[in-house]
Amino acid sequence: MAPPEEEIKEDSVAAASSADNRPISTVLFIIAMQKEAQPLVNRLQLTEDVDSMFLKGVPWMRYYGNYKDLNISIVCPGKDPILGVENVGTVSAALLTYASIQALQPDLIINAGTAGGFKAKGASLGDVFLVSHVTFHDRRIPIPAFDLYGVGLRQAFETPNLLQELNMKVGKLSTGDSLDMAPVDESCIIANDATVKDMEGAAVAYVADLLKVPAIYLKGVTDIVDGDRPTSEEFLENLTAVTAALDEAAGRVVDFINAKSLPQL
Amino acid sequence: MAPPEEEIKEDSVAAASSADNRPISTVLFIIAMQKEAQPLVNRLQLTEDVDSMFLKGVPWMRYYGNYKDLNISIVCPGKDPILGVENVGTVSAALLTYASIQALQPDLIINAGTAGGFKAKGASLGDVFLVSHVTFHDRRIPIPAFDLYGVGLRQAFETPNLLQELNMKVGKLSTGDSLDMAPVDESCIIANDATVKDMEGAAVAYVADLLKVPAIYLKGVTDIVDGDRPTSEEFLENLTAVTAALDEAAGRVVDFINAKSLPQL
Repeated sequence: MAPPEEEIKEDSVAAASSADNRPISTVLFIIAMQKEAQPLVNRLQLTEDVDSMFLKGVPWMRYYGNYKDLNISIVCPGKDPILGVENVGTVSAALLTYASIQALQPDLIINAGTAGGFKAKGASLGDVFLVSHVTFHDRRIPIPAFDLYGVGLRQAFETPNLLQELNMKVGKLSTGDSLDMAPVDESCIIANDATVKDMEGAAVAYVADLLKVPAIYLKGVTDIVDGDRPTSEEFLENLTAVTAALDEAAGRVVDFINAKSLPQL
Repeated sequence: MAPPEEEIKEDSVAAASSADNRPISTVLFIIAMQKEAQPLVNRLQLTEDVDSMFLKGVPWMRYYGNYKDLNISIVCPGKDPILGVENVGTVSAALLTYASIQALQPDLIINAGTAGGFKAKGASLGDVFLVSHVTFHDRRIPIPAFDLYGVGLRQAFETPNLLQELNMKVGKLSTGDSLDMAPVDESCIIANDATVKDMEGAAVAYVADLLKVPAIYLKGVTDIVDGDRPTSEEFLENLTAVTAALDEAAGRVVDFINAKSLPQL
């Protein structure tokens, strides 16, 4: 299942060069859960957009404002109107990314959120990873070429200077719509060489790639997938603490990005 | 592409209202594969939209035209630009449904396509099912309320007269992003009481429900999931024949819909 890496790389280079060397202006954060977003909304002193820029009827939320030289929006998929839970997962994330790019035409997307981490690959609770590549692990289509389409390997926008400055851990991300990990998912995650596992990243990447917007991914580890505790229990227990670490990392990323062009990242 | 938001809102509310007795005007077919769509494009003598109504860069395709009193569009997610395979699965289907509703404001959505069938639930090769309910089988989130969100049970728009007239088999549909069926998927499909299994339906339903557009689902059985042959082999072997059956059923549905209102279906 060899990825067409050269073409993927050309795409991200093209996305960067098309923006010339002008400073990054519009930054779009895509964050699946309100609880993950709120600390950053507070830190950047953003305002809730009550007159939604989205189609009527969708539960999506946006917080916006200026921070230093940046025009920042944080969008969240909001809550299911009947069940009251947040619209996590790939379908909502893809739709929200599409509609937000359409409305805001951002220079850069940052998908930030919590994730499961694999201790066998060096992840610990509370780590915040900068993702190098994203894949799906629950789209198995055993027909030639469709198999690669299903995996959906994409490279994150390369940010060597950001990485050096912030000294974050780097790893590959694998995305699936289940919080748990069935044996068949585990095999795919191992094949994908993933260090962190989430429920949205690869869907954001798919849309960002489709519409040629550079995207990076910050993932805070709320649970150890290859540990001995159930994911849902560990996730709920660590959500607040990891969200704080994620907020702190996102704040440093925003400060680093400010007044820089894409090639300077 | 500026979204006419107010018009969409009014139109959607009107379309969903049982008090609306105007004849159905705009019908949107969402079909994942070109090969599934082509016979119906030919039957209805539709024209390819070369000046795409979608955002620049997306591979989505639209065929459109008038058939009797109906304004019909068939949209397909098109091909992956690098891998050359069709953009099957929930993420593409959701995006395409969203963008098509935004652009066309349809009165009715028809998601037509091939599916796997369960002989234990009465499905045979070549059957075309009218779907009663849709669910997901690969979004396991074992946290109260999130579990139901993951399953995403939605009822298809009820069409008792259409059903009686066309005498189709009726069954529940379960959707997942894999062509194969892992044991964990099988358990969920059984829990979902599904007779047919596809890769798009529940994602189309999610978006149609979000934007309040009535939707129905026609699924032609290309392979028997609980049979003794591999899905991918049986799928490729039967694709052409089942697509013909699906086309014939879709043609009868269109003829039945013509000059009727939603409550008359």
